[in-house]
Amino acid sequence: MRSFTKVLSFLLISTILATYAQAKTYKWKLAMTWPSTLTPLASPPQKLAKLVKKMSDGRLIIRVDGKEKHKAALGILDMVKGGQYQMGHSGSYYWKGKDINTVFFTTIPFGMTKDEQYSWFYYGDGMKYMQKVYDKFKVLSFPGGNTGVQMGGWFKKEIKSLNDLKGLKMRIPGLAGEVFAKLGVNVTNIPAGELYTSLDRGTIDALEWVGPGMDIKMGFHKVAPYYYTGWHEPASEMQFLINKRAFKKLPKDLQQILLTAIKAVSYDMFYENFDASATAWAKMKQEFPNIKVKTFPKPVLKAMKKATDEVLQRYAKQDPLFKEILNSQKEYMKKARAWSKISEYDYIKTCKEVE
Amino acid sequence: MRSFTKVLSFLLISTILATYAQAKTYKWKLAMTWPSTLTPLASPPQKLAKLVKKMSDGRLIIRVDGKEKHKAALGILDMVKGGQYQMGHSGSYYWKGKDINTVFFTTIPFGMTKDEQYSWFYYGDGMKYMQKVYDKFKVLSFPGGNTGVQMGGWFKKEIKSLNDLKGLKMRIPGLAGEVFAKLGVNVTNIPAGELYTSLDRGTIDALEWVGPGMDIKMGFHKVAPYYYTGWHEPASEMQFLINKRAFKKLPKDLQQILLTAIKAVSYDMFYENFDASATAWAKMKQEFPNIKVKTFPKPVLKAMKKATDEVLQRYAKQDPLFKEILNSQKEYMKKARAWSKISEYDYIKTCKEVE
Repeated sequence: MRSFTKVLSFLLISTILATYAQAKTYKWKLAMTWPSTLTPLASPPQKLAKLVKKMSDGRLIIRVDGKEKHKAALGILDMVKGGQYQMGHSGSYYWKGKDINTVFFTTIPFGMTKDEQYSWFYYGDGMKYMQKVYDKFKVLSFPGGNTGVQMGGWFKKEIKSLNDLKGLKMRIPGLAGEVFAKLGVNVTNIPAGELYTSLDRGTIDALEWVGPGMDIKMGFHKVAPYYYTGWHEPASEMQFLINKRAFKKLPKDLQQILLTAIKAVSYDMFYENFDASATAWAKMKQEFPNIKVKTFPKPVLKAMKKATDEVLQRYAKQDPLFKEILNSQKEYMKKARAWSKISEYDYIKTCKEVE
Repeated sequence: MRSFTKVLSFLLISTILATYAQAKTYKWKLAMTWPSTLTPLASPPQKLAKLVKKMSDGRLIIRVDGKEKHKAALGILDMVKGGQYQMGHSGSYYWKGKDINTVFFTTIPFGMTKDEQYSWFYYGDGMKYMQKVYDKFKVLSFPGGNTGVQMGGWFKKEIKSLNDLKGLKMRIPGLAGEVFAKLGVNVTNIPAGELYTSLDRGTIDALEWVGPGMDIKMGFHKVAPYYYTGWHEPASEMQFLINKRAFKKLPKDLQQILLTAIKAVSYDMFYENFDASATAWAKMKQEFPNIKVKTFPKPVLKAMKKATDEVLQRYAKQDPLFKEILNSQKEYMKKARAWSKISEYDYIKTCKEVE
């Protein structure tokens, strides 16, 4: 009987070990650039954590830390690379100081729409280039939710000609800031918390933020009546980052659970923001009927486009990979835009005809 | 020692049972309306099966049967309701003979775009109404992938006035067929396999299919040079169906795995089709430079819109739920379209200005 007991003990221990391996819990942390309350930007990571917990039956737990916790809004890439956080949620173009090629995975002025860009990411060369750029940081990078077309911003005075841009004080960051600077705009950056007061008191004459859904909470429409349509961020994509070593340690099923959930919550963000913008825009127009939606005059747009091309060409001359990715986007956009025009664009025009 | 052996045996058996419960494999079948090769429509279910297998570590296996296997393209709802198949992939408007309210979950003429409609589904009342309509069939229903704006179809002759529609023989199914019939079109339905020959030989004068990505395989552009822009199916959404009893038997983690994968693969379909359409459209234009893209003249569009409203009003009078869902869509579309116009529509217009 003693050998029978031995066999039983052996079987019991192996079964428990197998069960334990299956049931091992991975506890991860995710740092995001945004405060936890800043929807819709802060929504994808928080939805991700909930979904992954349910799908993994509690085997993968992700704690989501907002900016209020880690105090390093623009330290996300470093923290994920270093392994303090297994994951991050941010915007690729925030790393343009580390590598200019990161800008392509957010949006560029006069670039692709959200539909065109997602098609480039998943059915063109987008994901290939994104991973190529992020490999050196030892992280995986994925699209993390899109705002759609961002509005051109709130202006206290109407822009009637290029002259009106000269000396204009405006908060507008990134490539668009470089473009506006070329046109004589006095480009400044001001912390989010001080924007409303700066605009109200005339410290700045104009600013761009996101779109009605996020702008309404800032109150800009109360102090600057001209709301310009977008040109500079046609499809701003957020970003999920994963530390590569941490990812490799996950069992295959948890890896796939994580990647599928990332895709679902990221696609979702556009619709959350679309709904918020549609709702906020209806409310703004009703409460502030003096808001005037304007598109920049054609000569101004042409000058912006020319300055954009110059900025992009300067980077392309400095960096062969920049040139390569820029060409990939341009080539893809050519066929994608031809289709956008005869499908959704023309459909909305058709509906306008019969209103 | 005998009692120790007993305890050991008891522990071993309980552990094995617990492991077994965790490891139980669910083998499901999914029937789709499409042949297995008909991408992108047949893509979401096939991607779903692969993802779910990986995410569940083989605990949920879904066998996907195309139309060539089950021979009942339009029997999907019945088969899922009856439990022969746990899941289905089809289009909601195919069930309009069982319940007219099913049409709202695909698309309606002059209705919402894909972005507007997904926002209505997930952030408006769409999902609530969809489940209300499908409850009586004892199934769960979910969006299953969108084609985007479908083109108005291929015409052998240009449509210059309402007169040109009178007596025109056209393949156009669904609500749009009812609308065209009111305008004097001789609406017919012809099996897919006979469409090309019918158009070539003049048995029909026009037909609508989907968009460049799917149309190119059918060859219509070789025999009918006028390609009309869309009005009748602005955002055709496919559909996943799940038998409710089968769903309830799944453990909670597998339920969430299934639902998350459904969302990810469904969102994906739009981009697969967008890429295919952009690519096919570039190829078509190059190889057949005589293709002429046309939008119906304003008086024709106005008559189509009037006829659409009449068709919808007739159903609304017969069915209070139809009226309620129609109003929900109309209300949502009002604010959503106002935002579409100043965001993506205006952005594409802006880009046209500087081309």
